Amino acid sequence: MSWEENVRRVVPYVPGEQPKEQNIIKLNTNENPYPPAPAVEEVLRTFGTEELRKYPDPTVGSLIGALSDTYQVPADQIFVGVGSDDVLAMSFLTFFHGKKPILFPDITYSFYDVWAQEFEIPYETKALKEDFSIDPADYMGANGGIVIPNPNAPTGLEARRDTIEMIVASNPDSVVIIDEAYVDFGGESVLPLIERYDNLLVVMTFSKSRSLAGSRIGFAMGSKKLIGYLNDVKYSFNSYTMDRLTMAVGCAALSDHAYFLDCCKRIVATREWTKQELSALGFSFPDSHTNFIFAKHKTWNAKQLFTDLKAAGIYVRYFDKPRINEYLRISIGTDEEMKALIDFLKNYQQA
Amino acid sequence: MSWEENVRRVVPYVPGEQPKEQNIIKLNTNENPYPPAPAVEEVLRTFGTEELRKYPDPTVGSLIGALSDTYQVPADQIFVGVGSDDVLAMSFLTFFHGKKPILFPDITYSFYDVWAQEFEIPYETKALKEDFSIDPADYMGANGGIVIPNPNAPTGLEARRDTIEMIVASNPDSVVIIDEAYVDFGGESVLPLIERYDNLLVVMTFSKSRSLAGSRIGFAMGSKKLIGYLNDVKYSFNSYTMDRLTMAVGCAALSDHAYFLDCCKRIVATREWTKQELSALGFSFPDSHTNFIFAKHKTWNAKQLFTDLKAAGIYVRYFDKPRINEYLRISIGTDEEMKALIDFLKNYQQA
Repeated sequence: MSWEENVRRVVPYVPGEQPKEQNIIKLNTNENPYPPAPAVEEVLRTFGTEELRKYPDPTVGSLIGALSDTYQVPADQIFVGVGSDDVLAMSFLTFFHGKKPILFPDITYSFYDVWAQEFEIPYETKALKEDFSIDPADYMGANGGIVIPNPNAPTGLEARRDTIEMIVASNPDSVVIIDEAYVDFGGESVLPLIERYDNLLVVMTFSKSRSLAGSRIGFAMGSKKLIGYLNDVKYSFNSYTMDRLTMAVGCAALSDHAYFLDCCKRIVATREWTKQELSALGFSFPDSHTNFIFAKHKTWNAKQLFTDLKAAGIYVRYFDKPRINEYLRISIGTDEEMKALIDFLKNYQQA
Repeated sequence: MSWEENVRRVVPYVPGEQPKEQNIIKLNTNENPYPPAPAVEEVLRTFGTEELRKYPDPTVGSLIGALSDTYQVPADQIFVGVGSDDVLAMSFLTFFHGKKPILFPDITYSFYDVWAQEFEIPYETKALKEDFSIDPADYMGANGGIVIPNPNAPTGLEARRDTIEMIVASNPDSVVIIDEAYVDFGGESVLPLIERYDNLLVVMTFSKSRSLAGSRIGFAMGSKKLIGYLNDVKYSFNSYTMDRLTMAVGCAALSDHAYFLDCCKRIVATREWTKQELSALGFSFPDSHTNFIFAKHKTWNAKQLFTDLKAAGIYVRYFDKPRINEYLRISIGTDEEMKALIDFLKNYQQA
């Protein structure tokens, strides 16, 4: 016997590389190429440092108030966490506490099975169709909960709102989590459905569309009852998760809606240009509604291309997993960055 | 059947009040009355806001490096979290995964039983002696883990290092967590023991002695093996818990050791003055080695006094629990704040 016998053993999630080198083109973790709203800079320059000696507001009132105004959802239907990973982890812990397996797609955000493992939640994956779309019939059987990213990652493909609604409506005995991390880049949110379905939780993040991956802000919206349970579990984990500076930064980001819309619009434009160029070069991909493209070349080996791009200072993401090991996930950077990628590919020849 | 049957039900921890009013004397949540080190201000004024668009370093390398220098502990023996509550929650989740009950004192930090409940960990509390000291014999039986705050909260009393060592040495099959949130105010850390005992985890925080409750930084030090397991569970929960700004703020706070020492010294001096005054007014208390005093008056009812103080704009903490419901926990503020408290008490008469 040793203390190690009482240890929870897990195989942790491996996040995308955060290279230390400067002057690389970083298209591997779906970050926004543009800085956060100018109001964020203003917060840093004027924040009363002395305030940091005091605990933050555990209810995160200011930020939840700003989210309430932005999304026109009552404050008691909003939950905030340290990035959407924190929101999702808390949601798994709170809502997936039954004995039946939870369901999610086989090709999806690679953290879902990690949380299931961590919290000892039984799970089943449902195979996406050949074209990477979801078959709602897969989510009609007995289950302990459902989680679906929409648009999906890493495919970039979006299910229509009526497909999601069919799944939510057919599962009144399960919480259905729709992870909308990428919805702001031209997707259609299912947020309006929370008024009709008390089992629907919609999760969003400041990391992508609001250029704040470095600040760690995620949030969820759902029925008052769902948010109440989520808060109970959260307050039993850590009362003060959101620090004072981050709260102020989040509010500042929300205050400039025009900047947010413009930023998303620019990324969508760059994405559409990149799609055309990639097609011309022999790539195919699901029609992305996100800030990345999941692309496969007609002849080039994806793993080799990933390595060659990296050697040239261009970082993209490669998943060495069945069904997707011939794809690269390419985040949308600035026009200049995407042009550099396309130029590299135009001159590329695989050995 | 409803989705609510799959929900984890918990009774959440209730943090100390964070009143919105200005001009109150806030002695209820053990915050530091002095601002963080001047270098923290400098970070805010010069931080490259554009950096916030990128994910932070998931290994929290810069801050762990600075902690390694400060405490002369190798980086792979240090873990960082979003406040020591996050560090403790992750530690409970990681190390207390056996079937035997974990042990902690009956009068202690009121979050321990909340975490046990949240993660469904069996637990037993061990009654402190009449003088609020720990009897090491209580921690010699079969158990699934041990957690002891030292100095203890809310009593302020410190167990000697040899008492703690006896407990750690007698439990090679359990992880023993020593929560040293308050050690910097004149306590003696058991940190040197981590070299000899691979089952000892020492937890500290920036919230009290480094005036950064608002930034949420906690850390733990222990054997390489302990920290490895803790990281596995943490990376399976949320890869990026520490945001970029907070990392920089934490490093800045550690960079000014003289300021830190001076701040702690001032608080200790104010505490000792307050002890004398409280004694003269008919209070008794365990000999605090922390930034608070756990005081009981010879005749006044504590709950009534708590309410009367609050009406006068002086917030302290009262726990309506057996054995301690005649005590008030009074955080050490500035000299002026403590003088205001003492002046109030000098003129106080209970109805």
